[in-house]
Amino acid sequence: MNDAVLPKILEHVRQTSILQSTMSMLEWDQNTGLPPQAAEYRAEQLTLLAGLVHQRQTDPVLGEWLDQLDASSAHEDPAKPSRVIARRMKRDFERCRRLPQALVEELSHATSIGQQVWVESKLSDDYQRFLPQLKRIVELKHQEADCLADPGQSRYDVMLDSYEEGANCDQIQRIFSDLRQSLIPLIQEGSERSARFGPSVVEGHFPIASQQRFSKWVAERIGFDFQRGRLDQTEHPFCTTLGPHDHRILTRFSTESFSTGLYGVLHEAGHGMYEQGLDPQWYGTPVGSAASLGIHESQSRLWENLVGLAKPFWTWAYPHLLDHFPTEFRGVSPEQLVQDLNRVQSSLIRIEADEVTYNMHILIRFELEKQLMSQQLRVEDLPQAWREQYRDYLGISPTEDRTGVLQDVHWSAGLIGYFPTYTLGNIYAAQLYAAADRQLGGLESQIERGEFQPLLKWLVEHVHRHGQTYLPMELIERATGEPVDSRYLVEHLGTKCR
Amino acid sequence: MNDAVLPKILEHVRQTSILQSTMSMLEWDQNTGLPPQAAEYRAEQLTLLAGLVHQRQTDPVLGEWLDQLDASSAHEDPAKPSRVIARRMKRDFERCRRLPQALVEELSHATSIGQQVWVESKLSDDYQRFLPQLKRIVELKHQEADCLADPGQSRYDVMLDSYEEGANCDQIQRIFSDLRQSLIPLIQEGSERSARFGPSVVEGHFPIASQQRFSKWVAERIGFDFQRGRLDQTEHPFCTTLGPHDHRILTRFSTESFSTGLYGVLHEAGHGMYEQGLDPQWYGTPVGSAASLGIHESQSRLWENLVGLAKPFWTWAYPHLLDHFPTEFRGVSPEQLVQDLNRVQSSLIRIEADEVTYNMHILIRFELEKQLMSQQLRVEDLPQAWREQYRDYLGISPTEDRTGVLQDVHWSAGLIGYFPTYTLGNIYAAQLYAAADRQLGGLESQIERGEFQPLLKWLVEHVHRHGQTYLPMELIERATGEPVDSRYLVEHLGTKCR
Repeated sequence: MNDAVLPKILEHVRQTSILQSTMSMLEWDQNTGLPPQAAEYRAEQLTLLAGLVHQRQTDPVLGEWLDQLDASSAHEDPAKPSRVIARRMKRDFERCRRLPQALVEELSHATSIGQQVWVESKLSDDYQRFLPQLKRIVELKHQEADCLADPGQSRYDVMLDSYEEGANCDQIQRIFSDLRQSLIPLIQEGSERSARFGPSVVEGHFPIASQQRFSKWVAERIGFDFQRGRLDQTEHPFCTTLGPHDHRILTRFSTESFSTGLYGVLHEAGHGMYEQGLDPQWYGTPVGSAASLGIHESQSRLWENLVGLAKPFWTWAYPHLLDHFPTEFRGVSPEQLVQDLNRVQSSLIRIEADEVTYNMHILIRFELEKQLMSQQLRVEDLPQAWREQYRDYLGISPTEDRTGVLQDVHWSAGLIGYFPTYTLGNIYAAQLYAAADRQLGGLESQIERGEFQPLLKWLVEHVHRHGQTYLPMELIERATGEPVDSRYLVEHLGTKCR
Repeated sequence: MNDAVLPKILEHVRQTSILQSTMSMLEWDQNTGLPPQAAEYRAEQLTLLAGLVHQRQTDPVLGEWLDQLDASSAHEDPAKPSRVIARRMKRDFERCRRLPQALVEELSHATSIGQQVWVESKLSDDYQRFLPQLKRIVELKHQEADCLADPGQSRYDVMLDSYEEGANCDQIQRIFSDLRQSLIPLIQEGSERSARFGPSVVEGHFPIASQQRFSKWVAERIGFDFQRGRLDQTEHPFCTTLGPHDHRILTRFSTESFSTGLYGVLHEAGHGMYEQGLDPQWYGTPVGSAASLGIHESQSRLWENLVGLAKPFWTWAYPHLLDHFPTEFRGVSPEQLVQDLNRVQSSLIRIEADEVTYNMHILIRFELEKQLMSQQLRVEDLPQAWREQYRDYLGISPTEDRTGVLQDVHWSAGLIGYFPTYTLGNIYAAQLYAAADRQLGGLESQIERGEFQPLLKWLVEHVHRHGQTYLPMELIERATGEPVDSRYLVEHLGTKCR
């Protein structure tokens, strides 16, 4: 039975994946160079494809096949591919079946237009222009949550579970409260220490073309495979997969800030290397798909922060930096550079925040989106609430919405419940890095020599290749030998503050 | 009846067009920056979508609706949109119905892979590598022609009719024989005259970035709307439409040759402006679609040759050229530039040929593909036949296949019967330009002042807005007031040779 039904499921998945990857193509293009007047039709294209995908994902025949596979594989090893496929796809199938096609299409359309309007609103610092779009998106997300909720499950729990299976609001609230308590004195100490540093060496004038060349070169050296991917510019950085061998990273470069571009690329390359490390023969199935958003973020953070911001990385990279920027970094020592990159200071923009204050930006968004979902906060009042939260958590507050509530693409794309996975990713990353260091021995000296292959290979073996075989926290426990624990992150951040 | 069934047809077309425009998206990307290892999966994506499009185009329900529309509109004005839709879509429906889905999918797959392999084969000058792909494509085109042929219709006539409705081999043979007779003395005279010119001023070193900026600026000034389009680089120039307001031109720049890039852009911008001039409210239907490939080519040739290569254009453009290339054209007069751009000389590469010898390149390809379709010529023997034809028609012959049979993308993409429309386009272009000049009065002095709007507006009104309302040659006759006549082309070319 199992042998007979699995190939049918795989062929079904193959065709669905082709439509999904085609949507990713349309979205990639929308973020790299869609002509201004083409936005409306692009939304129509995405809407139609989203409908076709939803039809396939809720195809009753698929449901029957999954039931058959589930029944026939019930006593097998839970880590066996057929078992993983039965278990994970049945869950997704049930979720899809609960969503009416009209809602799926309306969400796809609203978020496609929403992202266009968000770009314009951010450029013109005009929240009122974005407001009707965001209101509609939040309403639709309420409807989505109501369709998906198990009895007694809150709307926000439904959202969290979509991105990090098994996670719930209470558990995250606990983790985040603990973290906030640890962060308050660290930010205090780190800020005081950083205040004694000299003037910044990573702010000035850095030609975009040189930044692109250097960043691309670094991405290639740490292991991102350009035979199977590419690097482009966009407004809000992301990484997307257009096929089993087509992984694209998109970043933003700033002439004034050296770190924006390079660390954007390191971050997205981390995501990209995770996708490239998944097993292509299981492309589109749970066995060949990322475990969760938190796990995904752990990979980007590991390369961006644990590797890229540390001394060993710059011991290796510094001479190459001077090749690309012979005048810009003249007279700057690698020690100065590392110190400057690790400056701790409260700031307004999440993606430019230092590693220590970064998590506060997430905690703020977690509070706000929780309230949006429970209707304790109206979309109209969001800019004001944003400013109050920033004052409360970080002691500063934006005067413009483009450096406040309009800074991130996520909500315009319907991604609510997504932000918490960034901090979960930081926690996982620190724990994985510590385990790899123990198991490989001498990670620092490897990195000093520009040898990134052992670390990447370790991640592929212990994280990437498993796909969704295990739940996220279970995967971390298997890779590191201990349950998820934020102490590795707090210890790591401590080294930057004292 | 008509009122009831037309909206159903339009909605059916809308969804089909979305899938087709999505295929155009995938193909655009394949030609601008697909990662090397992603080619195989891209072919799978295109294959699946081609199958979905074919299913829709042969949907029996659509056939019934078209029959209903045809019957209920039979006595209406043949130029009325409902009548045009009934007539043209019924023809296309019948053609699609004759093609088995398996053949459509196989052709899509073979030509997608074919284009990839063609790029590699051209780069490595290795026809043998391309041979198996091309053999398969030609076999599949034989099958396609056999499925589509009316009783007694030859394979090549079927191919011609696909691109230029109503055209057939005998008629084209006649037109081309006449043209060849007129061209032989013109090429002789023109070559002798050109041999007396000084050294070339458009060969040297021209930075790609400056070429891109200048070409884009020119395209915008002649009327290509960048709010509804973009310009990118590729191996083989083309123009594609991704939606009613998304028209993309792709060209190749050469550091050594100034004219390759600029005239590639003018050519593709001509195609793009035609697409932008179609009526967007009828997008995807025959009323909002290009009349034929020959008419399409007439628009690109008109801007590239009739406008762009003539003295009035450079009277206007010359100061702007110097702004973009202050050192490269120092000491060159506009007269010298125009003379040099219009140099007549036999050469190997079609897309770099001068306007006079160009048509000989087409006549050669017409002869060869006719023989491929009638099986008088084997695909294995094509490189040899190519060299012989070049010796016969142009008195020169390539020593490498990359400057010979591998130079064009068309056959790798399954486009057989397509080349003749280039020369038909030249004939139409000269006739249209002469008519516009008569009707507008003083076209030359408008162009000298950089006023391109009257000419573009005339083309939109007399050509673009009609879509497929009239057959190609009928459209030319209505626009110019006389039947298609190659004498305008011969007269125009004569001015370059004497």
